[in-house]
Amino acid sequence: MKHIGLMLGGPEELWPAQLASDIDAPITAWVGVDRGSLRLLERGITPVTAVGDYDSLKPAERHRVEHAVHDMRYAPPEKDDTDSELGLQVAFEDLRADAVTIFGATGGRLDHLLVNLFMMAEPRFKAYAPHIAVVDRQNLIRFFLPPAQLVWPRTGYPYIGFVNLTPVTDFSIRNAKYPLMPFASDYPVSWASNEFLGEQPIQILFSKGIIAGIYSKD
Amino acid sequence: MKHIGLMLGGPEELWPAQLASDIDAPITAWVGVDRGSLRLLERGITPVTAVGDYDSLKPAERHRVEHAVHDMRYAPPEKDDTDSELGLQVAFEDLRADAVTIFGATGGRLDHLLVNLFMMAEPRFKAYAPHIAVVDRQNLIRFFLPPAQLVWPRTGYPYIGFVNLTPVTDFSIRNAKYPLMPFASDYPVSWASNEFLGEQPIQILFSKGIIAGIYSKD
Repeated sequence: MKHIGLMLGGPEELWPAQLASDIDAPITAWVGVDRGSLRLLERGITPVTAVGDYDSLKPAERHRVEHAVHDMRYAPPEKDDTDSELGLQVAFEDLRADAVTIFGATGGRLDHLLVNLFMMAEPRFKAYAPHIAVVDRQNLIRFFLPPAQLVWPRTGYPYIGFVNLTPVTDFSIRNAKYPLMPFASDYPVSWASNEFLGEQPIQILFSKGIIAGIYSKD
Repeated sequence: MKHIGLMLGGPEELWPAQLASDIDAPITAWVGVDRGSLRLLERGITPVTAVGDYDSLKPAERHRVEHAVHDMRYAPPEKDDTDSELGLQVAFEDLRADAVTIFGATGGRLDHLLVNLFMMAEPRFKAYAPHIAVVDRQNLIRFFLPPAQLVWPRTGYPYIGFVNLTPVTDFSIRNAKYPLMPFASDYPVSWASNEFLGEQPIQILFSKGIIAGIYSKD
């Protein structure tokens, strides 16, 4: 399985304690986005590909990235896509990833974090969404497509929140501490702090759109 | 003007360098939510009111809060509202705030952060939304209601992103580096990394829903 780690520019203090501790399979290759490439090099990890406009890097930092990374992708500074969208596209479409785990998505610019969540609802990324995780020190996000999904507990995460990233008309949560009867909303609602019933999976049902499941710990 | 600072439980390293540096008016009183109350006390600030179920505090920490804060509000651990929703309600409805600035909303649990953004779209909070700011080390979020708003530049924030928290049919951005022609989407889109034209305000137009404006810096 080709499992790509996509490192964005968010601060290191919000990364998971062990970069590969909370994921299901080992990372087989890394892609760095903007300052994320430099952060990987500082940890002794050389990304196979670097993506970005690199405008947040000083010349010496940029030179270090260019010297170390063979496959440099230069995005124009004025572009429609964010660097993280480009990184995700490169990971799936050029590098043919089976799964992508995104690091460094939090603690930085919130407009970027929200891109990273909401881009899963874009038609071009929707098919990839179930194969993407976003991880930081306290959270692990998965994305679910209709009509019905089992959401399994994960060791170390006592809470699970669900967010309808898109409008829903019949979203329900079953077999959870706080079940949700079929629910409708034309905007996102964050159903925070739900909990699993022991080792049993929660079941979510919905007929369209996309739901984010946020595993978290205090 | 009664300007309440609402301190949530997110980590201190993501707070603004000076707690009151990026806001428009001095904080006249503080409300602490859960661990936020303890964090304020550690900075020598005594909140007028503490809100939460305090289940993330050790007994000695909880005792310290109870000893210092006169107005303690105890939320049941199993409740429909999150602690930050309760804090916002107390600030506006009981303490009659004219404005609320929220700190400590980022870097912690993402289901909570998303509650803090999306609750502005709830009917009960919508009228308050234009009087609320969310601030951290790199971001300042304001909330805008229809039909047309001027969004002014702020010193120190080179970027401005816009997110339709609700469906939009005719959202446009004018007088910005990247104008947006009337745009429709039934889910949120994060229009990241826009910029002001010098000292001029950006104009946003939309007929319903609520738009978040995220000022940010690298």
